This record gives sequence, structure tokens and C-alpha cells, in this order.
Amino acid sequence: MPQKKNKKTVKNSYAMITALMTPQDQNFLGYVFGGAILKLMDQIAYVSAARHSGKYCVTASFDRVDFKEHVHVGELLTLKSCVNFVGKTSMEVGVRIEAEDPKTGKVRHTASGYVTMVAIDKNGKPTTVPQIIPETEDEKRRYREGQIRYKMRKEIR
Amino acid sequence: MPQKKNKKTVKNSYAMITALMTPQDQNFLGYVFGGAILKLMDQIAYVSAARHSGKYCVTASFDRVDFKEHVHVGELLTLKSCVNFVGKTSMEVGVRIEAEDPKTGKVRHTASGYVTMVAIDKNGKPTTVPQIIPETEDEKRRYREGQIRYKMRKEIR
Amino acid sequence: MPQKKNKKTVKNSYAMITALMTPQDQNFLGYVFGGAILKLMDQIAYVSAARHSGKYCVTASFDRVDFKEHVHVGELLTLKSCVNFVGKTSMEVGVRIEAEDPKTGKVRHTASGYVTMVAIDKNGKPTTVPQIIPETEDEKRRYREGQIRYKMRKEIR
Amino acid sequence: MPQKKNKKTVKNSYAMITALMTPQDQNFLGYVFGGAILKLMDQIAYVSAARHSGKYCVTASFDRVDFKEHVHVGELLTLKSCVNFVGKTSMEVGVRIEAEDPKTGKVRHTASGYVTMVAIDKNGKPTTVPQIIPETEDEKRRYREGQIRYKMRKEIR
Amino acid sequence: MPQKKNKKTVKNSYAMITALMTPQDQNFLGYVFGGAILKLMDQIAYVSAARHSGKYCVTASFDRVDFKEHVHVGELLTLKSCVNFVGKTSMEVGVRIEAEDPKTGKVRHTASGYVTMVAIDKNGKPTTVPQIIPETEDEKRRYREGQIRYKMRKEIR
Amino acid sequence: MPQKKNKKTVKNSYAMITALMTPQDQNFLGYVFGGAILKLMDQIAYVSAARHSGKYCVTASFDRVDFKEHVHVGELLTLKSCVNFVGKTSMEVGVRIEAEDPKTGKVRHTASGYVTMVAIDKNGKPTTVPQIIPETEDEKRRYREGQIRYKMRKEIR
Repeated sequence: MPQKKNKKTVKNSYAMITALMTPQDQNFLGYVFGGAILKLMDQIAYVSAARHSGKYCVTASFDRVDFKEHVHVGELLTLKSCVNFVGKTSMEVGVRIEAEDPKTGKVRHTASGYVTMVAIDKNGKPTTVPQIIPETEDEKRRYREGQIRYKMRKEIR
Repeated sequence: MPQKKNKKTVKNSYAMITALMTPQDQNFLGYVFGGAILKLMDQIAYVSAARHSGKYCVTASFDRVDFKEHVHVGELLTLKSCVNFVGKTSMEVGVRIEAEDPKTGKVRHTASGYVTMVAIDKNGKPTTVPQIIPETEDEKRRYREGQIRYKMRKEIR
Repeated sequence: MPQKKNKKTVKNSYAMITALMTPQDQNFLGYVFGGAILKLMDQIAYVSAARHSGKYCVTASFDRVDFKEHVHVGELLTLKSCVNFVGKTSMEVGVRIEAEDPKTGKVRHTASGYVTMVAIDKNGKPTTVPQIIPETEDEKRRYREGQIRYKMRKEIR
Repeated sequence: MPQKKNKKTVKNSYAMITALMTPQDQNFLGYVFGGAILKLMDQIAYVSAARHSGKYCVTASFDRVDFKEHVHVGELLTLKSCVNFVGKTSMEVGVRIEAEDPKTGKVRHTASGYVTMVAIDKNGKPTTVPQIIPETEDEKRRYREGQIRYKMRKEIR
Repeated sequence: MPQKKNKKTVKNSYAMITALMTPQDQNFLGYVFGGAILKLMDQIAYVSAARHSGKYCVTASFDRVDFKEHVHVGELLTLKSCVNFVGKTSMEVGVRIEAEDPKTGKVRHTASGYVTMVAIDKNGKPTTVPQIIPETEDEKRRYREGQIRYKMRKEIR
Repeated sequence: MPQKKNKKTVKNSYAMITALMTPQDQNFLGYVFGGAILKLMDQIAYVSAARHSGKYCVTASFDRVDFKEHVHVGELLTLKSCVNFVGKTSMEVGVRIEAEDPKTGKVRHTASGYVTMVAIDKNGKPTTVPQIIPETEDEKRRYREGQIRYKMRKEIR
């Protein structure tokens, strides 16, 4: 097994994407399409994974994403993410999504999920990523939970 | 508990979406963005759920989606779906995605996943959906597996 | 005149694209833009032509397209196509478009048309395509009609 | 047969759309997609038809469109149109498309075609349009040719 | 002159939009289009103005925007904004734009500018907005400078 | 200082972009997004600058843009531009925007602004542009005013 060259903190992988939901994102009922939100989840997971690995990354899998509440056109969607756990070439990124009506300032938690990204070298092959150092209690808890999901994913395969 | 009014076969919910991947869908490495594929998964799940329920539907959750292989610009992406299992107002839709290069006819299985959709009435509230009748052996197996996942989701919540 | 290397059946060129019409496709009256439908016709014609020729193809001409009925947002548009007739480097692709409301399952024939595609080699020049073998009665009729249109196009030029 | 209320000149229906072709419009070979050009043809035909009728209009049919030359990203596409001939509720719009590289000023004629538009009243039904008055020699020639195509279309149906 | 009903701090209007620049945003030279950046500036200015006014807002003017450096595809663009100064119905929003390559963490200041937004009531008419309370030294300086630009704009008109 | 090789008239830089505003451009109030209009301003400024310089150009700055009136979906937006004044590598482009409802023919002046573009050579570096020759009284007035703004911009920096 190759020696990992370096370690990075979870904090280093913190990322945020905010986007204003416009009429171009709405579905047949006037809400925002689930697909539009998943596209942003994919982007924020890329940002956290690229920060941690310093490489281009591709999506390996989406774990369960629960849409707790509808998102409305005119709301500001904020996605926050960090790397929870890393395997040899893969990183589990946790994403939390909140919607805010900027006219009222009211914020709602609308969805959460996990995305697994893989770092890619210049030949398009998976490449080793740095180990991750959880520092806070929350980061350590997410690390342990990510490790369990990592093992479950391996078993399922 | 309200009596379900009618039953429908799984076959009735079969749906297919095919889309040509254009340069507009490509990521930094020249592959198709995971987010672009998830957006199509969300649409096909809507079609199967609308077929089964006869109602507008919204995305409740995405279960694990594994991206087995990269998709390339110029390929024809085919998504096939059907309703595996139904709860009171929710439907688990199974989606299978294949990519084909029309120039060579070579087909590859690139991803699979489950999407849970909820039927919505005119007031934007969840509404009861018909029961589902699995007919073939495959449909019966997917029904049993869908039922297990349905119970696991309830427990997780 | 160069000898054509191979022959392919019409069946080999059968293609289908299905797309969910979203609010992003609607015109000033709430129907789907004709232009959005023509864009999909152009894509399906590409797929049939790429299947037949095994090459990248470009659009040479659109023959008459009749829009028989409006298409509505929320409908599933299905385009089916096959190569009707081939010239030396060109292929006439026939396209039939149907719209279905997935909530009701009602299907309507909304438009039909012919697109001529040309196969392109690596230098961007037109290149010879395989001959086509019509097998069924319908394919033979479409072949004869395609041949007549092919000659008419040559005369018009 | 209802008396047409007014007459308008062909000149009144002259329209022009110009658009810069960006990387978002390119196909697999680096040229602009035929579908992107057809979408603009549909828009310019709408403008000429709306000018003549003073009503919202929808696309009834596309007549033959010949793509004479590839269009490249970075070129400025200019579409010019006018109403050639009118039926009771329909208008034949002629469209001519030229591409120009603004860096060199070189202009090329890339495509031409005819689009038939129908004027729509508030209930979504076809509605009578004003008669058209061709004034110049070119307009009179196009009127006569449009009349022949109008009769041919009726016979084909 | 109508009495302003309430006052709000500058801090309350702080907003941030972050977006990943994808190949869909690139111009002929492989950089991100100025127009794509201006579109995001317009959105962030809307968010700050909606936060301050609690109303829907529309763009009244863009003051000078300087593009100091090219933005590249793959970079994360972060726009930060706050309301600098308010007139009766208008708000001057200051926007600062930074680009970061998530693979390296390197951040560059790429552009800055001022956008004036106007709050709109239910009849589409401009409506009075709350006064603004600058608290920090920076906020007070930006208030004074915003006041000067406000007067200059009035004179120019 | 390098000798400028050639001179070109203002007339040579005249450009026009026209675009039909569709539901895809609308904001929360049903008007067209300011950002959508700025994107077109950026494009037309590119066209005038590319015509004058014969080179690819990038946006250096947007001067004040006043949005005088709302633009509505269904209107035809016409942007006209020309180079007012040139520095060594930069060109000030004046843009005037009018909106027309094609159903009524009514035209409204909705916005105006100045965009400064810089010509770029093959290495991505600013490159010298031809001198400009104003011919009409309007062109001479715009040249003088452009020169004043050019000096003001230099001083501000």
C-alpha cells in the first residue's frame, strides 16, 4: 500500500455555494426541480473534494438525499460541504442545503446528503488523496459515521 | 387508513428517456457532469411516478446512485425506469442508465439508482396513490427489495 | 464512382429520443416553442445517421416539418427516426414525433418531417456511406418515396 | 368568407435577428448545431408574423431549409425575414441567414428557408390576418412563388 | 416627504453568492464571459437589496465595473455585497468579486462594481425603503462615498 | 511608442444584435432580468471591438448603464453599438438598447451604456488597435466625450 504523502484538516475542505433560484429552475408545480438542486450538490461536492485532493475529481456515487421541504423560486439556496472521510482515492463529502427568502430572512433546512468523489490524475485514473484530520467534535463524529458508510459501501459492492 | 381506489401493473409505469450528450453537458475533464445525469434521473422518475399515480409528483429522496463509468459527449444516454414499490403516498422508482456511442453501437451500463417520488394534490399536499401489481419474476423481486428499503428508510427517519 | 464497402439494414438505424417538456421550453402562449422541437429533431436525425454511417454527421437540410398540434409543458415528447434512403454521402432520415401526458397516458401525433444528414470524415469533408437495405413493406415504401424526394432535391438545386 | 379588415405592406413585416455564436452552440465537430440555427429561424419567423398580424403566432410548418455552409463559433449570425404570402390565418415567412466573422468582416450566405406561422386569438384558435401588399419587384416575385407553395401545401394535405 | 418607517444595519444586507465556473460559461479565448459575471453581479445585488428592503427589487443602473483579471473555467467565483447607501426608493449595492482555484486555494480579486436597485411594490411602482445604519469604519466610509456617487448620478440626469 | 499601422472609420465598427425575449429571460416580477440584458451588451461590444481591431477582444470595464424602462417577455430587444474612442489597446464602445413589441411596432429606448474592450493577441496579451476616424457630427461628438471619459478612467486608476 502506497504511503500517503500528506494530511489535511477537514476545515481546509469547507466549501459553500449560494445560488438564487430563478424562474428557469421551476417545475410543473412552481417549485424548484429536484434535479436543479442535485446539480448544485454535485458542484459543491466537487469543490470540497478538489480542495482536499488538489486534483480534478469526478462523482463516484450519491448516497441518500432527502428533500425535506420544497424550494421556491426567488429563494437563495445555500449549500455547505466538507470532506467527512477519505479512502485511498475516494472522499465522502457531506452536503447540507438551506433555503432563505432574502425578503424575510427566514431560513429553512431543505435537504442533506453524501456524495463520494474520486480524485483523477492526468491519465484519467483514480489517484491517492491526502489523509484527513478531523479536529472538532462534530468533525470527529462525521468521520466515524463516514467510516461506517465507507465499509457498508464496500460490502454492498 | 383510507382504502386505495385502484391497482395498476408495474408495466404501466415503464418509462424511457433518451438524450444526446452535447458539449453543453461536459465537465472540466471532458466527461459529462454527474449533475447533468442526475437531472435526467429526476425527470424519468417523475414520468414513471406520474404514469402510476396520474398526478403531479415531487422528488422526496434519492437513494444511492453509483456512477460505474464515465459518460462521454456524443453518446446517447438511455434511462429506463419503473415503479418498484409504493407506500401510501410515495413510490420508489428504479432507474437504470446506459450509454451508447451511436457511431459504434456499443452500449455500456453506466449508473443505477432509486428515487422516491410523492404524488401531490391540487393543494400541494401528498395524496394516496394506487397499489402496484408486480407480474414478472423480476418485478416481484424488485417489489420485495423495494419493500425492504421502504422499511429501512422509515426506521432511519 | 467508388464501390460502397458495406450495406446495413434500415432496422440498424432505428433511434428514439424522449424528453420531458419543462417550463424552460415554453413560448408566449404557454405551449412548447417550435424551435425546441426542431432542436430535438436535429439530434434524433444525427443519431440515426451516425448509427448508419458510423461517422460524425452534419445537417444538410430540413424538409417540410408539419406541426399538427401544440405540445404542452409537462408532456413527454417521443421522437422516432430511421434512415429512409441514402445517396452517396447523404442520408434522408424520417422523424415522427408524438406527445404523451404521463398523467393520463394519452398519446398524440404532433409532427413529422424529413432531415438530410451528411457523413463527415476527419478532414471535415463529406464521405461515402453504406447502402441501406429496406426489409419490411413500410421500409420499402419509405425507400421509394425517399428516392423520389432525393431526385427532386437534386433537380431543385 | 369574412372580409379582411386591413392590408399591410411587406415592408412592414421586415425583421432581423442577429446573434453571436458562442461555445454553448457548438456540436461534436466544433461547428454550430443545425438545431441552434433552426431555433433562431423559428424566432425571426415569429417576429415577422407578429408584425404583420399584430397577434401572437405559432409555428405551423417549416418548409425545406438548406444548410449551404457550416457556421463557426465566434461568427455573428444574421437572420432576415419578411412575410411573402398570406392565406386566411397563415403567413409564409421567408428567412435568409448569413454568417459574418466580425474580425474579418467576411460574410457568407449559409442557409435559407420558409416558415409558415398561424395567428392565434385569445382562445388559442387561428384568427384572420391582414392581406399583404407586395411593392417591389422582389416582393412581387416572392408573393407569386409563395402562392404556388401555398397551393402545393394544400394539395399535399 | 413620507416618514421612513424603520432603519436597518448594513450588516443585515450582507450577501454572498458562490458559483463554480463551468465550460458552459467560457468565451472564444477559454476565459469566462464578462456577461456571465455581470449576470451574477445582478443576482447578488438583488439579494442585498431584497434583504434591506424586504421587497422585490429591480436593477436601475450598473456603475462602472472593472474587470481586473480573467476568470478561468474550473474556478469558484465568490461575489460579496452589501448596501452602501440608500435614497428614497433606491439602494446602492457594492459588489466585490474574487476567483479561487479550489485545487490550489489561490484567491484573486477579479472585479468590483456598484449596482443601484429600486424596491418595487405590488403595482410595479417604486416604493420607499428603510434607512441604513453604517456601523463599522468601512461601512461609514462606503456610506459617504455612496452618498457622493448618489448626488453625482442625480446631477448627470 | 509603436506606430499604429492603420486607421478605420467609426462606421466600420457599427454593429447590431437583436434578440427575442422569451420566458427563459424573465425575473420574479415577469420582467426581463437586468443580467440577461447586460450579457447581450457584452456580446455587442465584443462585435464592435472585433470589427475595429480584427482581433479577439475581452471586456475591460462596464461604465454606467442606466435601465430606463422594464423590458417585457415577447419584446424584440435591439442593441446598436459603435466604437466611440480608442486608446492604445482599448476601445470604448457605446451601446444603445431599444425594445419593440412586434405585435404593435411600438419602440422604447430602454438602456444605454459604455463598455471598454481590449484587443488580445495570440499570447493573451493586450495588443495595439487601429486609430479611429469619426466622420459625422455625432461621431465627432461621441469621440470628444469618449476621450474625456478615457482620461477620467485613467485618473481614477
